[in-house]
Amino acid sequence: MAVTIRDVAHASGVHVSTVSRTFSAPHMVNAETRTRVLAVAEKLGYRPNRAARALTTGRTGNLGLIVADLANPFFPPLIKAAQAAARGQDYHLFVADTDENPVEEQDLVQAFSKQVDGIVLCSPRSSNKALEKLAETIPFVLVNRRMRGVPTVVMDVAQGARAAMGHLAGLGHRRVALVAGPAGSWTSGEIRRAVAEVPGLDTLVIGPNAPTEEGGAAVAERVAEAGVTGVLAYNDLVAIGLIEALEERGVSVPGDVSVIGVDDSVTGRLHRPKLTTVAMPAADAGRMAVDLLIKSMSAATVLETHLVVRESTAPPKGIP
Amino acid sequence: MAVTIRDVAHASGVHVSTVSRTFSAPHMVNAETRTRVLAVAEKLGYRPNRAARALTTGRTGNLGLIVADLANPFFPPLIKAAQAAARGQDYHLFVADTDENPVEEQDLVQAFSKQVDGIVLCSPRSSNKALEKLAETIPFVLVNRRMRGVPTVVMDVAQGARAAMGHLAGLGHRRVALVAGPAGSWTSGEIRRAVAEVPGLDTLVIGPNAPTEEGGAAVAERVAEAGVTGVLAYNDLVAIGLIEALEERGVSVPGDVSVIGVDDSVTGRLHRPKLTTVAMPAADAGRMAVDLLIKSMSAATVLETHLVVRESTAPPKGIP
Repeated sequence: MAVTIRDVAHASGVHVSTVSRTFSAPHMVNAETRTRVLAVAEKLGYRPNRAARALTTGRTGNLGLIVADLANPFFPPLIKAAQAAARGQDYHLFVADTDENPVEEQDLVQAFSKQVDGIVLCSPRSSNKALEKLAETIPFVLVNRRMRGVPTVVMDVAQGARAAMGHLAGLGHRRVALVAGPAGSWTSGEIRRAVAEVPGLDTLVIGPNAPTEEGGAAVAERVAEAGVTGVLAYNDLVAIGLIEALEERGVSVPGDVSVIGVDDSVTGRLHRPKLTTVAMPAADAGRMAVDLLIKSMSAATVLETHLVVRESTAPPKGIP
Repeated sequence: MAVTIRDVAHASGVHVSTVSRTFSAPHMVNAETRTRVLAVAEKLGYRPNRAARALTTGRTGNLGLIVADLANPFFPPLIKAAQAAARGQDYHLFVADTDENPVEEQDLVQAFSKQVDGIVLCSPRSSNKALEKLAETIPFVLVNRRMRGVPTVVMDVAQGARAAMGHLAGLGHRRVALVAGPAGSWTSGEIRRAVAEVPGLDTLVIGPNAPTEEGGAAVAERVAEAGVTGVLAYNDLVAIGLIEALEERGVSVPGDVSVIGVDDSVTGRLHRPKLTTVAMPAADAGRMAVDLLIKSMSAATVLETHLVVRESTAPPKGIP
């Protein structure tokens, strides 16, 4: 059961309004009473009204996490890890979903900005320019986007994309396709740049595409007609949508066309054929982003002082 | 780009501090100026500092949605539909995840209570008693829990569970198992009561269990040794975990044991064998819960008045 302000007042032997003032206007409560009330509140585990506290301390005790699409299986492991990291440091995590919409994304940052102390913004779809503007309003950390002056956690998807293309080349494929992700995606750009560097492969880039099963299904026709024998898809959902649509057309995977996803989501593991994929350390990213955010919010690093006893102090006169 | 307080001040021909007061302390601004500023603010789409506004109007413009486990594929369609309904009525939706923990659930309601105007609490794990206490602090709507005096949206899972057991009986199964869900789950209780009513089946109840793949895998041994030929699992994840663990033991599904899930999640559709399941209208529930919440929050129903002209009024003297 939650401890109420009444419990604290009773245990401290003061009026409820004194407990209230202790948290909302501490300078109006005498020091001795304030100390007693705070000690009792801490002992009982009392949480003062966070909104009121936010006005005096500027802290809400909440963090925000914004993702492009909660229904994409890439995000839940990231969210769960971020949540565990936040809880471990006594923060609540509130999550919001932009539906892949950059305008909604900016709107949500603003909605969060008065309700949370800082934001983790995952795979943003907004331009760097729009993000720079938002970074002035609230501390935030980016996941899978690099931006000057903003703390960021990125996954080295370029390395994974090169490995995926190397795997296709090693299997003997020569003409392959990259089914790219959405236009605003840093990750998609990284994959695109990386596959261009892989020697020995003739790579057709198809996209931008929605990062969903529908996005993959929509390009099945083009993939089937392009004469490619291997595909790297932007993520597991796109890969699965593509596979299902290819098989509906009688194109067998991997018999006729090999398909590789990105993410190593639970969905890709459950799918048949089990999906070859680039594993993305999403949980690590979620955890590290929250740690980085909390560190970046503690503006003051407190360094210890110590007393240097030299010759200017002595016992008062009369004490032997 | 977001409209700033400066834009509103400029367009209204007043100082920034006047715009600020119009939203935070309207009684301190003369009526004419206030009307002009509000009209300009509305026209430009200006959003005042929501925390400050919350203190004067009690409104944040945000709704909270609490789920037991974001990683359970049952929830994303519910969340997305709730989000669309919230957006359609100019609310932002913040989501939080309790990790199936009733203490965390109550803690999150409290954390939300100052940052949002109302909460949708989905598949709560807390006792009714604990929820009654929380219902005093903030408007909320329950999904998949019935409670006196609290608006609720439930899915008729009992009907689905009876249909599932009827399907097994129709296939000729006689000895079956129910792999139940977690202890605090209303849905699990409903399923349990429903299957007890199905005639012609000898039903072994196994549980409570965690509502996850691990929960399903953990009872595979008992299911295999119980001599049952059919299983209804609490949800699709439990069913999939059970199927994978049964097959590792050389028990084939549906060759040796038939398994039915509950949810009709995307995960069940992608799994092979494709999962027989009870479809739950999760998206409808999310949408309707938000609609119900917003309706329940508008405490005052405004009824129109009209002027009744009788005989006590007349033009002032001197006007013919």
